This record gives sequence, structure tokens and C-alpha cells, in this order.
Amino acid sequence: MIYFDQAASSFPKPPEVGQAVSEAILRYGANPGRSGHKLARQANSVIETTRRKLHKMFHSHSPDRVVFSNNATSALNQAIEGLTWKRGDHVLATVFEHNSVRRPLERLKQEKGITVDYLQADGQASPGKWADIVKRHLTDRTKLVIVTHGSNVTGEIIPVKEIGDLVADHPALYCVDASQTAGVLDINMKGMGIDLLAFPGHKGLLGPQGTGVLMVANNILLRPVHVGGTGSASELPAQPDIWPAGWESGTLNTPGIAGLLKGLETIEKYGLDYIHSHEKELASYCIKELEAIEGVKIVGPGAEEERLGVVAFYIKGVDSNEAAMILDEHYNIAVRAGLHCAPLTHNVYKTADSGLIRASFGIYNTFGEIDTFTGAIKEIKEGLLE
Amino acid sequence: MIYFDQAASSFPKPPEVGQAVSEAILRYGANPGRSGHKLARQANSVIETTRRKLHKMFHSHSPDRVVFSNNATSALNQAIEGLTWKRGDHVLATVFEHNSVRRPLERLKQEKGITVDYLQADGQASPGKWADIVKRHLTDRTKLVIVTHGSNVTGEIIPVKEIGDLVADHPALYCVDASQTAGVLDINMKGMGIDLLAFPGHKGLLGPQGTGVLMVANNILLRPVHVGGTGSASELPAQPDIWPAGWESGTLNTPGIAGLLKGLETIEKYGLDYIHSHEKELASYCIKELEAIEGVKIVGPGAEEERLGVVAFYIKGVDSNEAAMILDEHYNIAVRAGLHCAPLTHNVYKTADSGLIRASFGIYNTFGEIDTFTGAIKEIKEGLLE
Repeated sequence: MIYFDQAASSFPKPPEVGQAVSEAILRYGANPGRSGHKLARQANSVIETTRRKLHKMFHSHSPDRVVFSNNATSALNQAIEGLTWKRGDHVLATVFEHNSVRRPLERLKQEKGITVDYLQADGQASPGKWADIVKRHLTDRTKLVIVTHGSNVTGEIIPVKEIGDLVADHPALYCVDASQTAGVLDINMKGMGIDLLAFPGHKGLLGPQGTGVLMVANNILLRPVHVGGTGSASELPAQPDIWPAGWESGTLNTPGIAGLLKGLETIEKYGLDYIHSHEKELASYCIKELEAIEGVKIVGPGAEEERLGVVAFYIKGVDSNEAAMILDEHYNIAVRAGLHCAPLTHNVYKTADSGLIRASFGIYNTFGEIDTFTGAIKEIKEGLLE
Repeated sequence: MIYFDQAASSFPKPPEVGQAVSEAILRYGANPGRSGHKLARQANSVIETTRRKLHKMFHSHSPDRVVFSNNATSALNQAIEGLTWKRGDHVLATVFEHNSVRRPLERLKQEKGITVDYLQADGQASPGKWADIVKRHLTDRTKLVIVTHGSNVTGEIIPVKEIGDLVADHPALYCVDASQTAGVLDINMKGMGIDLLAFPGHKGLLGPQGTGVLMVANNILLRPVHVGGTGSASELPAQPDIWPAGWESGTLNTPGIAGLLKGLETIEKYGLDYIHSHEKELASYCIKELEAIEGVKIVGPGAEEERLGVVAFYIKGVDSNEAAMILDEHYNIAVRAGLHCAPLTHNVYKTADSGLIRASFGIYNTFGEIDTFTGAIKEIKEGLLE
């Protein structure tokens, strides 16, 4: 089986991830931070170790400002809905936003009367273009600039540092959705001027599903989406203003977080440089092989451009969903067709109707798998069209 | 090691739970319901099997109205915050509510101007008393009646069917927090007239942490707390009104849910009758043994009353936290001291300052463990006081 759906969830996970999760469940499955006994302390300890490692890897403001959630969507909703909004507030986003950003923003448009611009730099990302377009659209009503660090459809990388430098001179907050880049690109929250950083644990970070993270800069007022038991200050009727507990009500996913820790250790072992260059080389090779097939059209950055290991394309005259189904059934190759929860991106490329085939690569994928894949695409195209 | 902190999180889990989680991570860790390939379908299949089993076990309105969350707190926040509130709306709750109910309600008091009555039946629960008091407090402004099915501090059971019958004749919605009873008592959502039913997967249901459930009756308008990717209707800017996807944005905790399925199968194997009677017998035995120790005071229902396997007590003149620490360090017995995130309950028993020692039992606990525990309490009391 060839798994090229890494942008949805990474697979396989390092064996240590499964072991750590199983061990947490079977050996110390107590409620972290609620009781004082040994098992609870052990559960708490693995969570705090993971928290500190995330803090260091992403240069967050403090370990206390590393908030665990169950996926990136919850983290992004907490970031967006947690701010105080009033009619006329303005948000800048990009056409590459996933529905986990777009839908919270669209709801704020409906419910609170905010306005949103979804920006697109002309052509491929190149130095200065994204910053230019963001600069042109910043107004004194802009309260939030929110950008995805990398498109989950095309693999295009958005220059978040460049935009961050610009937003630093403006009162707007800066939120980055690192769903496709955490565990792949170096992200320095403080160095990039990021106020809110959200990502899943189960994609590039190689952790299990059920894990996500929101990092919050100091001095940001954020209404907790969920309130409830915090394990401390229990006598207060109001949610205590204690980080991170006040934003992590209820029992955390201890086994998931124990698995995430092993994912982070694997990332450290390989190093981000290796991971990014391996995934990018796979993508470049894949693009070149696909471009050699007549009728195949790549969407997004080319083989030689800076990009993630996500390749989107279509075959003229071939339905993308049908091709994905044949890849699965006849070739045992897992890709994803459709809109990838990012319809605006498809509008840009006019592929909203036909959809795209997306192949996304991870650290364990190989060049040999790409050969098998591109061979299959050639056969599918010939079988269906010739 | 003796683990008497089952009310916080059950331990140990059935070995099958750890195995199923590990297998999900290592063998089919794809994104459920997002892509059409085999691994995604396998992930989706385990989730839908679990959903249908929950639907049957709890007699929910439809499998589509079984919404997965990451813990009971998220489920309760979705239930409470998801309703439409206006100034003057009234809520009935009980003094036994956990902070996961109390804090969302207190926040609605602050933010929306609702009013809340926290009810307490005089003395122990007895037929009619809870229904009487609820009836006396229902007004035409009452929009929600929310009760915990069982106190996480004292083990007292609230007659949710009796209250449900009463609320059925009133326009108010009826929400039950089954955090302490799911997997222990028979809960029939439709039969008990429950509109919103919330519980964790990691307590009585023996699943892993990172799992929770909200069941929603048909025809209830509920604003999703989180919006984002739903895997279908991706082209819509607004969250699609499709159950359960519209209330489950983002990647679900597939491995956690796979583990929960094994927990549910274990519950079915033992049967609720056995589980409840075993836990109750452990509690009765424990209470009798504790009451034989001079200076020990049990709080909540007595040994012969209907109750859960949760026993709360204090030792006159002994600090509860200190006793719990000694139990952990010298006897390797895990209990929980403090407020248990339910300060109103402590107010009732005037134990908010001293706290209580809570011992809570599960299906794998034994009478021999209770002997060791009560022997330890005797020694601690003698060592500290005599």
C-alpha cells in the first residue's frame, strides 16, 4: 500500500508513537493534574514534558502558553472565536485558508458584522509579493491577520515571517495556521511575530489523531471556548485566569499527548532540514514525472520552486474522483480527490467543479513509490482516454 | 498499587482498549471520512460502528445525533453554549453539578443575563423529592433543566427519569450529565425524555482519554461551538447543517474512538447490572468498614442506600489532602482529596475548607483492596491523632 494522503493525517506513525499511547493507556491512565497520586503525576509529567518540548521547538512565549486541543480546528476556533469582535472589525486572510479558518470567519461576518478579505498574491509566491498585498489591505479596522503557512491543496508556502514583520508595526494580531508545516518547516513564533499559532499533532508532527495545539502570545485576551473543571481554583464560579489550565478544561488526551511526544522526538531525530528537503524532492520528482504525461496539468508551485510535499493536479478529460478511486482500488495508492476543505483555493485555479487529485508525501515515502504512482497515472489516463 | 480514583478516569483499561488504539495508530491511521481510500474508509468504519453502538446502548434518537467530542466538558459546553440565550432565561440545575456545568452556566449569567437555581433535595434522594423540588422551581422562563445523573463527590444518584417525566410537560429542554453513570447505570435517552446527554468515554465506559460524547435529540437547534472542515459540502462558506459532521469539525480521534469501542464491548460483556451492583457493593462494604473507625464521617448516601461506587468521607481532625498523600506514598493507594471540581456539593456538606477524601471504585476493584484501604485509614488516623 502506498500512502500519499499525508496532508490529511500522517501514516505510518513511528512505532514508538503507538507504543507510547498504549503504555499510557495500560500503565498510567489516570487523570493528569487532577489528583496528587503517582499515576496522576505520571500522566501530568508526560503532558508537561510534551508542552515544554513544543515550547522549545516552536519558540513560543512560555510553556504555559502552549494549550493542548484535540485538533487544529479546535485550536483555530479558539483563536478566532476567542477574540472580542465588534461590527466593522476587519480580517485579512488568504485564498489558501482551510475551512477551519474560513468558516469561523464567515460565521463572524454573519453574527458580528466583521469584514474579511481573502488575499492572493499574483502568481507564485516570490519575495515581497505577499507582504505587498497584505500591506495594501491593512486598514485601521484590521484586527486580525490570519494566514495559512502552507496550502493543503497546492503545497505553496506563504512567507509568514515577511508578513509577520509587517503586521508587527500594526495593532492587528497575527495568527498562523501551521497545519501543513508544523514538523516540516522551522517555525519561530516569537521571531516571526506570531501572536496565535495553531497546528495539529497528527500530521507533520507524527503524533496520533486527537491532538492539536494552540500557542498564545503573552498579553492576549482570549475568551476560553470551553469552561469547566480546571483542577485548580475549583472553588471559583468563574473560569480561572490561569494558563494553560483555564483554556484546557476537562480531561486532556493523555495517551494522545504521550504519543505526540514520541512524534516530536522522531522529528528531532530526522531534523526539519532533512524532512523538508526529502518531502520537497519527492514533490519535485513527482511533478517532473507527471508533467511528462500529456494531458496532466499541475496546479501550484512548479518542480523547482520552494514548496511543500503536496502536489495537486488534474488529467484533462478525467474525473479526479474517478482517478482517485482507481488508484485506490487497482493500485492500492491512497490519494485525495475533491475540494480538500479549501474551496477558495479551487476557485483560484478554476478547479472547483472538476476537483484535483492531491498526492502528499511524508518522511517515510520513497522515490520508488512515486515511480509506481506516476506509472499508474499514465495507465489510468491511457485506459480512460485512449 | 490500588487505584480508587475511578471517578476521575477509569484504570486499568481492558487490555483490548490499548491494543485497539495502538492498532488504529499503526495500521490504519488515516483521516476518517475525508478521503475515499481504503485506510480512510477503515478509520471511518470503526467510528461509525462505535457511533451505532452508542446509539443502541443509550437509546439516542438516531446514530447521526451521536456527536463525538474529546471529553465530557466539551460535550457539555456544546450543549449549554450551543443553545440560544436571552436575558432573563432561567436554568434549573443541582448543587451536585460539576464545574463543567456550573462554569458554563455562571458565564451565561455574566454574559447573557440568565438566572440559575442550583437545587438540592432535602436529605437523601427518595422517591418524589427531586421531582417535587424541580416542579416548584420550574417557571415559564425556564429554558433548560440540567442535572448530573450522579454526584462525582458523594455517589448520590439523581432520579433523571422522574425529572424527565416532569420536564416533558414543560417547554424547557432537559440535559443530563452522565459523567459518573455512563457505563454503570442504564440510561435510556428517549425513555427518560432527555434532550441532551453528555458523558466521557474514559470513565465508566472504559475507553481512553480524549473521548467524549454528546447525544442530541431531533429538532434541537444547536450552534456548533467549532466550525471548519466537515469532509462534505466543502464548497459552502457556512457550516453545513448535516448531523453529525456539522458538529464534529476537524479530524476525529480515530484511535481513541477505536479504543472506546472496546470499552463498550467490555461493558456489554459484564453487563450494567453486574457493574453497578459490584461497584455499589464495594461502596457499601467500604462505608461499613469506615464507619467502624471512630472519627470517620461519611458524606452522602449510606451503605444501604441506592448509590454509585463513589465514597466521600473525612476524618475528624485530619487534613484530607495529607491523608491522601500518605495513602499514596506509604500505602500505594490512589484516591482523590480536595474539591473534586464540585464546590457547591462541598458547600452543602460544609466541607469546602477541609475537603474530603474520595475513594471511587470500578469493575476491576476488589473487596480485598477495600480491606487494605480501610486498614490504612485506621493506621493513618491512629498515627496522626493518637
